[in-house]
Amino acid sequence: MITALAGGVGAARMLRGMIEVVPPTDITAIVNTGDDTVLHGLHISPDLDTVVYTLADAINLDTGWGLAGETWRVMESLGRLGGVTWFNLGDQDLATHCYRTQRLYEGATLGMVTGELARAWGVEVDVVPVTDDPLRTRLQLVDGPEVGFQEYFVKMRHDVAVSGVRFEGAEQARPGPGVLEAIVRAETIVVCPSNPVVSIGPLLAVPGVLEQLQNRRERIIGVSPIIAGAALKGPADRLLREMGFESSVVGVARWYASWMGTLVIDESDAPSAADVEAEGVRCVVVPTIMSSVARSAALSRTVLDAVG
Amino acid sequence: MITALAGGVGAARMLRGMIEVVPPTDITAIVNTGDDTVLHGLHISPDLDTVVYTLADAINLDTGWGLAGETWRVMESLGRLGGVTWFNLGDQDLATHCYRTQRLYEGATLGMVTGELARAWGVEVDVVPVTDDPLRTRLQLVDGPEVGFQEYFVKMRHDVAVSGVRFEGAEQARPGPGVLEAIVRAETIVVCPSNPVVSIGPLLAVPGVLEQLQNRRERIIGVSPIIAGAALKGPADRLLREMGFESSVVGVARWYASWMGTLVIDESDAPSAADVEAEGVRCVVVPTIMSSVARSAALSRTVLDAVG
Repeated sequence: MITALAGGVGAARMLRGMIEVVPPTDITAIVNTGDDTVLHGLHISPDLDTVVYTLADAINLDTGWGLAGETWRVMESLGRLGGVTWFNLGDQDLATHCYRTQRLYEGATLGMVTGELARAWGVEVDVVPVTDDPLRTRLQLVDGPEVGFQEYFVKMRHDVAVSGVRFEGAEQARPGPGVLEAIVRAETIVVCPSNPVVSIGPLLAVPGVLEQLQNRRERIIGVSPIIAGAALKGPADRLLREMGFESSVVGVARWYASWMGTLVIDESDAPSAADVEAEGVRCVVVPTIMSSVARSAALSRTVLDAVG
Repeated sequence: MITALAGGVGAARMLRGMIEVVPPTDITAIVNTGDDTVLHGLHISPDLDTVVYTLADAINLDTGWGLAGETWRVMESLGRLGGVTWFNLGDQDLATHCYRTQRLYEGATLGMVTGELARAWGVEVDVVPVTDDPLRTRLQLVDGPEVGFQEYFVKMRHDVAVSGVRFEGAEQARPGPGVLEAIVRAETIVVCPSNPVVSIGPLLAVPGVLEQLQNRRERIIGVSPIIAGAALKGPADRLLREMGFESSVVGVARWYASWMGTLVIDESDAPSAADVEAEGVRCVVVPTIMSSVARSAALSRTVLDAVG
């Protein structure tokens, strides 16, 4: 049994490769919900949806988010009305949010709804929100107020300086059903190449998760989201620096060192392998850019073999 | 200045004709919100939308509700997910509900949002919800539970026996800004050919409205929604019977007699004119079927002349 800690796009690509090399029913993906937001009254869970859509081969491969063959009728009309359109929601994607919101209103948990959506899309990986309770990533801007994750990420295009990150609701949040068990029982725990600060960070903030991970350090292997000093996508590099870490595989190793036994870095970072190991983290060097399902599958095989 | 009491389709058609014969800025439409519902987390105000869409010439004339040239991408996807689809929401229409829900979340009142939507659609009639507070029409079924209006009207297609109707929230509801003033100041108050029980009924249930109407009895003129014993559309006929009234223009006159001075009935009901007057309500007989904007305009002219 394999457990993956997952954010959005990078994690989804990794998982899409992983189901080529192990049965999907052997995989539990514990997914970040700190990016969740309510807009237009709709409960939106971007990372959960990106993982499910990608595993269903329904993702828009050009953008990495949203659905292939999407249409934008609602947003076009909303724009004409002068509504809030900076968070772009496709018509098919909106159906997901309508479904989720109605089911939550009816009393279902986020985990139950996620399971229903995954089944509707034919996804056999067990996709589990890290918590069913409210968890919201908030970023303190250097030259401005504290803002929610989507305002930072989408509206401001993460092009602003951040002085602090916190996870609202984390102290009261309980791990979702099966989350701690998936960490305890997993043969291998894979930390996907997601943003260490705002994708994996929220998972660690849910009480109990970090403690269980620390108990499994030797079975935990991460893939660095930083390649040659930069993030392939998103603000992982600048957020690491803003949190006082190097934007490098060494910075990633230091960020994770207390509970991660092994870090996979890209071959372009091979010269830094010794520095990673100096952080007390075993280092594996392979190609990590997942430009195709085949490359993602190869990466998964390497990752699973490295610990297994 | 003219004030109209309005439900959905019938009222919207009447108002569409009225703006052909008086300046739209001279008209205030006080609209029923008892049909409002929250579905998928979205605040839906069917009567407000039908009035605005119709005045904007954007309504789907075939159905009488929803928008012309509508698409159904979200609902099609929601159906594939196994979501709630008995309340059909078009893509453009969903934008209206997204807009309204977001604005309400931001602290706007329903009246403010309605004004914004009306302006976005170029509608110059002052469209005003009867109250900004929650008001929900509930129907007690003879062979079943109490249900909300949309469940009765759409899901059950109003094909069930009703033993009682109540307006949840009415006692605490305050008339929307301008509502009582519009009744006090109007030269003529027109009661549109809407369902007396579930479209006009909720307006009367908001404290203060009925009292002000009673003060204006001689300036109030209604158009019967019952023609030759039946409603053109919807359950007005059966609900009147279920509430103990005749399904006829005489039943309508009796329903409204305490505060309505004049009732307009269709020429097909001419033989009942004397019986209407026996209820203490002046009777005007004209063609009332609004099969075109021109016919609706002619009806409006007759109605306004009859009192003016």
